[in-house]
Amino acid sequence: MINVAIVGPGLVGEALIKMISNYSASSRGIDTPIRLLAVTNSRKMVVDPPSKPANLESWKASMLSESSPADLGKFTDLVSEHGPSSKTIIVDCTSNESIASNYPSWLEKGFNVATPNKKAFSSDISLWNKINSAAKNCPSKPLILHEATVGAGLPVLSTLNNLVLAGDRIDKVEGILSGTLSFLFCEFSNGSSSGKSFSDIVKIAKANGFTEPDPRDDLSGLDVARKAIILARLSGVPIELSDLTLENIVPEELRSTATVDEFMDRLPEFDNHFSNLNQTAFKNGEVLRYVASIDLANSKYSVSLKSFPKSHAFASLSSGDNIISFTTKFFSNPLTIMGAGAGAEVTAFGIFSDILHIASVKQ
Amino acid sequence: MINVAIVGPGLVGEALIKMISNYSASSRGIDTPIRLLAVTNSRKMVVDPPSKPANLESWKASMLSESSPADLGKFTDLVSEHGPSSKTIIVDCTSNESIASNYPSWLEKGFNVATPNKKAFSSDISLWNKINSAAKNCPSKPLILHEATVGAGLPVLSTLNNLVLAGDRIDKVEGILSGTLSFLFCEFSNGSSSGKSFSDIVKIAKANGFTEPDPRDDLSGLDVARKAIILARLSGVPIELSDLTLENIVPEELRSTATVDEFMDRLPEFDNHFSNLNQTAFKNGEVLRYVASIDLANSKYSVSLKSFPKSHAFASLSSGDNIISFTTKFFSNPLTIMGAGAGAEVTAFGIFSDILHIASVKQ
Ligand SMILES: NC(=O)c1ccc[n+]([C@@H]2O[C@H](COP(=O)([O-])OP(=O)(O)OC[C@H]3O[C@@H](n4cnc5c(N)ncnc54)[C@H](OP(=O)(O)O)[C@@H]3O)[C@@H](O)[C@H]2O)c1
Ligand SMILES: NC(=O)c1ccc[n+]([C@@H]2O[C@H](COP(=O)([O-])OP(=O)(O)OC[C@H]3O[C@@H](n4cnc5c(N)ncnc54)[C@H](OP(=O)(O)O)[C@@H]3O)[C@@H](O)[C@H]2O)c1
Repeated sequence: MINVAIVGPGLVGEALIKMISNYSASSRGIDTPIRLLAVTNSRKMVVDPPSKPANLESWKASMLSESSPADLGKFTDLVSEHGPSSKTIIVDCTSNESIASNYPSWLEKGFNVATPNKKAFSSDISLWNKINSAAKNCPSKPLILHEATVGAGLPVLSTLNNLVLAGDRIDKVEGILSGTLSFLFCEFSNGSSSGKSFSDIVKIAKANGFTEPDPRDDLSGLDVARKAIILARLSGVPIELSDLTLENIVPEELRSTATVDEFMDRLPEFDNHFSNLNQTAFKNGEVLRYVASIDLANSKYSVSLKSFPKSHAFASLSSGDNIISFTTKFFSNPLTIMGAGAGAEVTAFGIFSDILHIASVKQ
Repeated sequence: MINVAIVGPGLVGEALIKMISNYSASSRGIDTPIRLLAVTNSRKMVVDPPSKPANLESWKASMLSESSPADLGKFTDLVSEHGPSSKTIIVDCTSNESIASNYPSWLEKGFNVATPNKKAFSSDISLWNKINSAAKNCPSKPLILHEATVGAGLPVLSTLNNLVLAGDRIDKVEGILSGTLSFLFCEFSNGSSSGKSFSDIVKIAKANGFTEPDPRDDLSGLDVARKAIILARLSGVPIELSDLTLENIVPEELRSTATVDEFMDRLPEFDNHFSNLNQTAFKNGEVLRYVASIDLANSKYSVSLKSFPKSHAFASLSSGDNIISFTTKFFSNPLTIMGAGAGAEVTAFGIFSDILHIASVKQ
């Protein structure tokens, strides 16, 4: 029996609670039983609630009626009382950096960790090193997995890890790693010479909830840069944000604009800029894509707008999907994986894959 | 420490011996040590040879100078003497059906199994059932994995398994699963109206070693059908070969032709037939691809020549590569994986991924 404790029952966390509850209620859960034991958000927590909730609705009810005030230290102590930490997985479904800073101490105590939170793996390399040595030095060899930090539910990091362990030489990792930027550029730059303006497409994306509340958080490229850092580090190169050429496509004049509304109002002033880039690509038979490129063979790491011929897999990608290619010694024609790289359910699936792996090792 | 015993050091088996030797000699092998313990082909075997070979060349030398006559029963007995069967993986790198018929008894004894041999998983369903119940009923819960049976080193079966375990609904699995047929049709039907004849392309493929010695073994579709059966069964539908619509594209008149040379000599007589199919596709803006289609939503299973619009991922595939898409509830835009699906090294990588998984669970 493996115990799971979830920190952060938000969009992704709730999808995960559903997935675990369904698994446990079905025959799938017999061979490798997984028990959802505890949940905490920033305000309240429940550990092994007396009502033994079996599905998402009853977990929500427990959070309302049986919870105590949130306290992360108490939370992990209470969780420990229900089983050895080596058979417990703490799942961090927040995007919080201060929660992420707990991973070393959780791993020292023997807890396994699974998370879609990029912060710990893409911030200062010292945290990355602390995490790895905590996991290594703990006698029970706890696992820490974070498949969903890149490509959500796509089997990206597990594949990269296996290639590295098998002794493959990773020459290049390249990909479209943001669902939002995939949508924006697949819609804007689709190989036809006319179409909607860039600002109109940003407006549509925002209206449909495909962007962050402030679309500049997508257009800055920082989220993609974090994913690029994770891919580089897992490929064996311990880069920092400063080692990466990062192209922020928010027009310089709009970066310090105070409000989101003002940013959106003024974005059309820059439509010509984007449309010129698109026309240049079009004349070369190419399309624009915002890509992360980890060129290990040449030690060049960038996150930027690039153009690709129409025959390239990045050009024909379905709008909104992610795509990642690994060019390696084994795969000189790259091994490529594509599909939805955002959304609560596929992200929960990525975390669930990690939980299944940890459960099969530790049960 | 996990012991590995290899049956069938052929092209793939030798690539695997190299991979394991390199792994053990590097720092990668420290956390999860894997020891190559024994090797047998159909004539000779060595178990824990006194010279303790450390690489492929020394294993070959041991096979020459320290081996005894092959005997599979003795082989597994000797292997057992070096460690518990629960910490041993027998790797079947033959394509032999009678070797595959040993899996149930190996699993009953607690041995884990990893293999690229499709036979056990695509033959009579009774063998499939025996294997599953042997694995289930053995108290040590041995694992049997066969990632490399579909798409070689591409993470196909592990991904499908995770989707199924996570409770996803698999609607359709579709793919180009033969490197040979991928090469033939990517070269033959590439969206231009003229080009080489089909028989010429088969000739080139044969001359380059991309086909079986008798190309009819590729063109019959049987190998693809076996992979389709594996995908269907892992998706939860226990189909047999007879449940599958299988299009053999060897012209009827040439199926019983006695020799390969005669077949190759007469194939040009049928160039018109293939070129007509190609022209029809071309007129519709489409290309021909030989695909396996497991349509679970409609209970339709086929392996056949189909045409796809040029914008489809199957159309722009690199010649010779495999591609597999999973259309599911989680991934309504399919999750797609592509890259080399044949070759000794990538196949060995698929097996090595299985070995790593078993080693992390059983060590
Ligand atoms: N959504 C996607 O498509 C996607 C894809 C890939 C990865 N991810 C990652 O998945 C994670 C979750 O995303 P989401 O969309 O589910 O976010 P969300 O809906 O905003 O949920 C965040 C959750 O974290 C909790 N939380 C925040 N600070 C906390 C604290 N200090 N202590 C305890 N709980 C705290 C929140 O609870 P309160 O209500 O108390 O604040 C909330 O339950 C993020 O790291 C994100 O980057 C998401
Ligand atoms: N090559 C690929 O690209 C690829 C891709 C995916 C999957 N696979 C699968 O991988 C497997 C191996 O392929 P391969 O290309 O390596 O084949 P191969 O070169 O023909 O090697 C076969 C090996 O099996 C041994 N063998 C045959 N019968 C045996 C028996 N009764 N007992 C013990 N050993 C026996 C052979 O030894 P002897 O010399 O004694 O006959 C030889 O060492 C096959 O199942 C194939 O379908 C291959």
